[in-house]
Amino acid sequence: MAGKTNKRETEEKTDFVRPSGRNYDELRPVIIKPDYLDYADGSAYIEMGKTKVVAAATVEDKVPQFLKGTGSGWITAEYSMLPRSTEKRTPRERAVGKISGRTQEIQRLIGRALRASTDLGLLGERTIIIDCDVIQADGGTRTASVNAGCIALAICFKNMLERGQIDTFPLKHLVAAVSVGIVQKKQLLDLDYLEDSQAEVDMNVVQVDNGHLVEVQATGEKIAFSRTELARLLKLADKGIEEIFKIQRSVLRKLHPVFVAF
Amino acid sequence: MAGKTNKRETEEKTDFVRPSGRNYDELRPVIIKPDYLDYADGSAYIEMGKTKVVAAATVEDKVPQFLKGTGSGWITAEYSMLPRSTEKRTPRERAVGKISGRTQEIQRLIGRALRASTDLGLLGERTIIIDCDVIQADGGTRTASVNAGCIALAICFKNMLERGQIDTFPLKHLVAAVSVGIVQKKQLLDLDYLEDSQAEVDMNVVQVDNGHLVEVQATGEKIAFSRTELARLLKLADKGIEEIFKIQRSVLRKLHPVFVAF
Amino acid sequence: MAGKTNKRETEEKTDFVRPSGRNYDELRPVIIKPDYLDYADGSAYIEMGKTKVVAAATVEDKVPQFLKGTGSGWITAEYSMLPRSTEKRTPRERAVGKISGRTQEIQRLIGRALRASTDLGLLGERTIIIDCDVIQADGGTRTASVNAGCIALAICFKNMLERGQIDTFPLKHLVAAVSVGIVQKKQLLDLDYLEDSQAEVDMNVVQVDNGHLVEVQATGEKIAFSRTELARLLKLADKGIEEIFKIQRSVLRKLHPVFVAF
Amino acid sequence: MAGKTNKRETEEKTDFVRPSGRNYDELRPVIIKPDYLDYADGSAYIEMGKTKVVAAATVEDKVPQFLKGTGSGWITAEYSMLPRSTEKRTPRERAVGKISGRTQEIQRLIGRALRASTDLGLLGERTIIIDCDVIQADGGTRTASVNAGCIALAICFKNMLERGQIDTFPLKHLVAAVSVGIVQKKQLLDLDYLEDSQAEVDMNVVQVDNGHLVEVQATGEKIAFSRTELARLLKLADKGIEEIFKIQRSVLRKLHPVFVAF
Amino acid sequence: MAGKTNKRETEEKTDFVRPSGRNYDELRPVIIKPDYLDYADGSAYIEMGKTKVVAAATVEDKVPQFLKGTGSGWITAEYSMLPRSTEKRTPRERAVGKISGRTQEIQRLIGRALRASTDLGLLGERTIIIDCDVIQADGGTRTASVNAGCIALAICFKNMLERGQIDTFPLKHLVAAVSVGIVQKKQLLDLDYLEDSQAEVDMNVVQVDNGHLVEVQATGEKIAFSRTELARLLKLADKGIEEIFKIQRSVLRKLHPVFVAF
Amino acid sequence: MAGKTNKRETEEKTDFVRPSGRNYDELRPVIIKPDYLDYADGSAYIEMGKTKVVAAATVEDKVPQFLKGTGSGWITAEYSMLPRSTEKRTPRERAVGKISGRTQEIQRLIGRALRASTDLGLLGERTIIIDCDVIQADGGTRTASVNAGCIALAICFKNMLERGQIDTFPLKHLVAAVSVGIVQKKQLLDLDYLEDSQAEVDMNVVQVDNGHLVEVQATGEKIAFSRTELARLLKLADKGIEEIFKIQRSVLRKLHPVFVAF
Repeated sequence: MAGKTNKRETEEKTDFVRPSGRNYDELRPVIIKPDYLDYADGSAYIEMGKTKVVAAATVEDKVPQFLKGTGSGWITAEYSMLPRSTEKRTPRERAVGKISGRTQEIQRLIGRALRASTDLGLLGERTIIIDCDVIQADGGTRTASVNAGCIALAICFKNMLERGQIDTFPLKHLVAAVSVGIVQKKQLLDLDYLEDSQAEVDMNVVQVDNGHLVEVQATGEKIAFSRTELARLLKLADKGIEEIFKIQRSVLRKLHPVFVAF
Repeated sequence: MAGKTNKRETEEKTDFVRPSGRNYDELRPVIIKPDYLDYADGSAYIEMGKTKVVAAATVEDKVPQFLKGTGSGWITAEYSMLPRSTEKRTPRERAVGKISGRTQEIQRLIGRALRASTDLGLLGERTIIIDCDVIQADGGTRTASVNAGCIALAICFKNMLERGQIDTFPLKHLVAAVSVGIVQKKQLLDLDYLEDSQAEVDMNVVQVDNGHLVEVQATGEKIAFSRTELARLLKLADKGIEEIFKIQRSVLRKLHPVFVAF
Repeated sequence: MAGKTNKRETEEKTDFVRPSGRNYDELRPVIIKPDYLDYADGSAYIEMGKTKVVAAATVEDKVPQFLKGTGSGWITAEYSMLPRSTEKRTPRERAVGKISGRTQEIQRLIGRALRASTDLGLLGERTIIIDCDVIQADGGTRTASVNAGCIALAICFKNMLERGQIDTFPLKHLVAAVSVGIVQKKQLLDLDYLEDSQAEVDMNVVQVDNGHLVEVQATGEKIAFSRTELARLLKLADKGIEEIFKIQRSVLRKLHPVFVAF
Repeated sequence: MAGKTNKRETEEKTDFVRPSGRNYDELRPVIIKPDYLDYADGSAYIEMGKTKVVAAATVEDKVPQFLKGTGSGWITAEYSMLPRSTEKRTPRERAVGKISGRTQEIQRLIGRALRASTDLGLLGERTIIIDCDVIQADGGTRTASVNAGCIALAICFKNMLERGQIDTFPLKHLVAAVSVGIVQKKQLLDLDYLEDSQAEVDMNVVQVDNGHLVEVQATGEKIAFSRTELARLLKLADKGIEEIFKIQRSVLRKLHPVFVAF
Repeated sequence: MAGKTNKRETEEKTDFVRPSGRNYDELRPVIIKPDYLDYADGSAYIEMGKTKVVAAATVEDKVPQFLKGTGSGWITAEYSMLPRSTEKRTPRERAVGKISGRTQEIQRLIGRALRASTDLGLLGERTIIIDCDVIQADGGTRTASVNAGCIALAICFKNMLERGQIDTFPLKHLVAAVSVGIVQKKQLLDLDYLEDSQAEVDMNVVQVDNGHLVEVQATGEKIAFSRTELARLLKLADKGIEEIFKIQRSVLRKLHPVFVAF
Repeated sequence: MAGKTNKRETEEKTDFVRPSGRNYDELRPVIIKPDYLDYADGSAYIEMGKTKVVAAATVEDKVPQFLKGTGSGWITAEYSMLPRSTEKRTPRERAVGKISGRTQEIQRLIGRALRASTDLGLLGERTIIIDCDVIQADGGTRTASVNAGCIALAICFKNMLERGQIDTFPLKHLVAAVSVGIVQKKQLLDLDYLEDSQAEVDMNVVQVDNGHLVEVQATGEKIAFSRTELARLLKLADKGIEEIFKIQRSVLRKLHPVFVAF
């Protein structure tokens, strides 16, 4: 089996051409519109290629049971797709009567990413809910949700500061995410749906802006993968995430002086 | 009680000024973007003031039980609000575990309006689902959904024609809807949320483009209303609906020659 | 299309004969038995032809969240059909696991009708639940529910007065409802199931006893309808509702002196 | 402990007087109205004192999975209480979102009783659903349901014979049920709610009309009971059940000659 | 019918041989392992032949609504089967979305049995939950649950005494249960699944250790049964239950001196 | 932040002593009992310290929709914890009415791990369900489930071979899993509950027996982690997993010659 693996690793440059014509280490065009909604406590709209997500922050004056009396806050995320965000219509989860494992997995990932970037002790006993609603889905909706969620959260914190709800800006780091994977033996950055659906290895990486990792989820959908492959995919992800950080910074700095620190 | 009522009817010109500064018979600005989504069989985005709705059509090759074997089709609607479409966050219905009466009422209204405008016999045994998802809600989301749903449906029918799924364009009429109501004794067209929440009488009117009515729902939330008041509200609604028909026509005619007939 | 419509309106006298042999403006026989149940705080049984409904009032010492601290009360309704109230057995909603849109629509209609007839400020922070259970369904169950619900509510208020829970009788008006519709181009009062299932236009009207309207719900199931047709149907409904008020008054006045005012 | 028990058994004649003034071995007045509903395939209304139940039979042309292909039929029962059948309002199970253990226990009991009385092989692959809906509940609703259900079923079988659905009358025996119990050390027949709620031992007995037992459910709610007490309660139940058989027979024989055999 | 019945009663010694080779009045081998779990407040594992159940006690500092303020406690049971405890896999009830009638019936039986053996007034306002989880099911899981539940409860009470939560040992009696039935006309003790699935009469008996009955549930699945048969089955059950009491006593006495009283 | 991180990485040898006294790279004692259940198509019981799991395989002759007609099979997993497997009782998910995100995440992980180790094309259109039920939970239940699930699956395949359901043994690799993490800056193998609940970084690794990775899930619960830390944790996991493979091999080889290949 080792021989077979080596073969795969050395043959990495296959004939595979990305459907979009992108280079293997090229992100899709990223557009972020901050303050997209009138009523949310913070919001952002993101496009990563055809993938389109609205993220909205809501401040609630309560915390989960295990935080009561600690003075500390919490961040949680909800994720949903419009039924016709997808090529084939996806029935609403309210109709099916239960939240799918995929949805729950994604919600938990987004929540962890945003909590890891925040000093929860500065929030007081409040919960920030980040609603991520997918208008259109072409792969990478969970990573787009993290990327937009970070902006919605940053704006929400700015508004809380202005309202006097908090004294110190609680976001420690920008946080961003990207998917990488192996498709037809080729390592690719930012998979779209067509690529994702045929990936041999699928991986989501979440990082904060000092280069450290918050979450690594790598899955061999069809084949097992070596430690070397894992390392290469992590490097590819790092490249994409640094580009997203630049866009996030640019959007935030235009918005308000408090974001200049990022 | 009659005296009191007459008083109300004659005193119609109260000091009440609309929060938006609009005239009593003035629609909010209406913007319709057709073909808003890449994957739907037909779609439209509508803004009526701050109210923003995405409507998406999906063709499914099956019909409800009672239509099987009849050769006839069906149109149904689903309606949902993004949690932070509202001033205060509305929990997702999937979380609550049931679809509210309000949602069901709205879905049924949209479905009836679109079915009444269509020759269902021309569809073959297919169901068109119209998904109406509210991005932002400032009153009148159900009527905005009908207005955008009509465009999504028209585009869907055009696409079905082009694919050869149907032979004849099945939309008999454009259909549009608007809300009217009595607020502080004043009869108003196209209520926003602030007006709607204090309305004494609340009414939704759906019409087809020959001036006939498809649906009238009038409710005395706080007071009962006279037949004269009902007639005046119907007239106000007619004015607004005719303006919406103009916008719908303009949007469709730019899109494709098949729509010139409307 | 206008020509076609005029034709319908003038040809109103079709060959259509009502299955029951009733005149077009004739109610089915109405029987109301007050105080039908031993344990309810107020109750009534109604027969409108073969349609049979039991309405029961329950006083609860709590109000919905939005009324807490206001000193004001609330009235709400629940509606259900026995499984074999219908020609074909209707599965119980508890088995299906959700309340249908139809049920919710009806519950909301009954609740609004009864609230519009009551001075809720006189109730104190109490909720009156009106349970409407359909023993047999031959069309018009929602209007029968309003008619019986009004009696159950009136008796409930009398009992609350006698127990000293309230000081003033809170029912401002009797309230009654009836369905009207267009069947085979003929305008009919009080549709039974056979008529209702083939109606072109279906309409439910709720009025209070000063002649004002509380609710108008008109739906063009198969055709759109003109403003003239709407006005005629409203007039037909008025005739039927006035006859129901007479029966309600007669039942209540026999029961207790407090009801003489109606 | 034996001493204590003997004491209870010998002291059986306590001062306890039944709230209704009935003798310890006296049934409440029993009224059965056959053919109570217009649409059911068989129905009966029963009063046992203030307890009032409507039973309705429905024939469905399908059987549970385990009977498919056997040519044999099935009988099942559904039981529900109107919310205000009770002194304190009982929320609808559809609202609670699950069927209570009590309801399920009762449904299963009724189903077993009726199946035990029927030659299921004569039904063909059909299921008879017996809906038992409690209009008013004053104890003994499950036994009243069995008693009315037997009549509804018998009428249903008669109708099936007349329609030619079956050739032979499938009811082998009349079946009836009654509750017995020990209240304040006194053994009582046909407990009403007040008695039932304070019973030390509670027992439901179902018999067919040859004197044999179909079901015995005896529960020591507060105390354990001896084999002697069990035997005495069974005898008391037998007396009551024989009286119910007389009423069932009388009702059926008036209805149709086919029932003379019972 | 009487003749037929007598025949059955006299012909009791049929050719029927138990699949396990057991004598008609022979229990399966019973093994009880006390303190099976590390974290429960009391626990026991039981094997009755191939039937294997884990019972675990949990003390919660709250009581059902109707006991609040009374100073008295409560015991309740939950019952579940591992999906592959059975010959054919049983889907999890969480997947089906509702608790089956069978499960509820069993839970209620276990709860009543344990409450009947306990002086609930000595518990304080606490609830003991007895979780009975079936690892393998070969008939008699509900009676095995009672038998293991009694040991888990006794150990739980010992631990509560040691922690000073209670002053007096609240278990009044050991309680045990066994199934009996009639299979191919033969009366059998402790039915395994093969026997149970073809039983004509099925019966569960719960007794306390003074010989009195707590629960008798006898069901004629295929035939009705006579009072004589009922009495004989009760006697057979008594024999089995006394043997279980011996095993329970032996297990408890080895565990702790407090159990010597039993 | 880099300085702080370097500090952590160099200071790795903290004073932290594992509660169990284990070395940092030491597994808990692992016991695997194959063929634990009588009725399953394959089963295993595993203990990893106090963590105890039963895994049971079931063969069903159907596949998910997307595999119909492909000739290929599927493997899926269900995971559940007995309520009192934990220190504090965990309510049953059937009672809560929904499957938690944690449960779904775990089920999906187990399913992917087992599918990655199997040649699904050899199964025919069959689904293997692996039920993992946690008898006692002291951390690492998902990795224990993978480890036992692999054995249950292997035995199931052996039985399918013997029954002639399949021709070729479909398990390509043994698969095993272990958790690693950083607790008080110390990198640890096989965390128990006490360690897991205070871990700064938590990671689950699944490997097949050629050393390749199937799944890596690393989460910075409290801190972000560097690529170097990730690599070290992967190495620690590799050590543990190789030890588990030895135990799995030993168990299987004793059971049947077909397993000698592993």
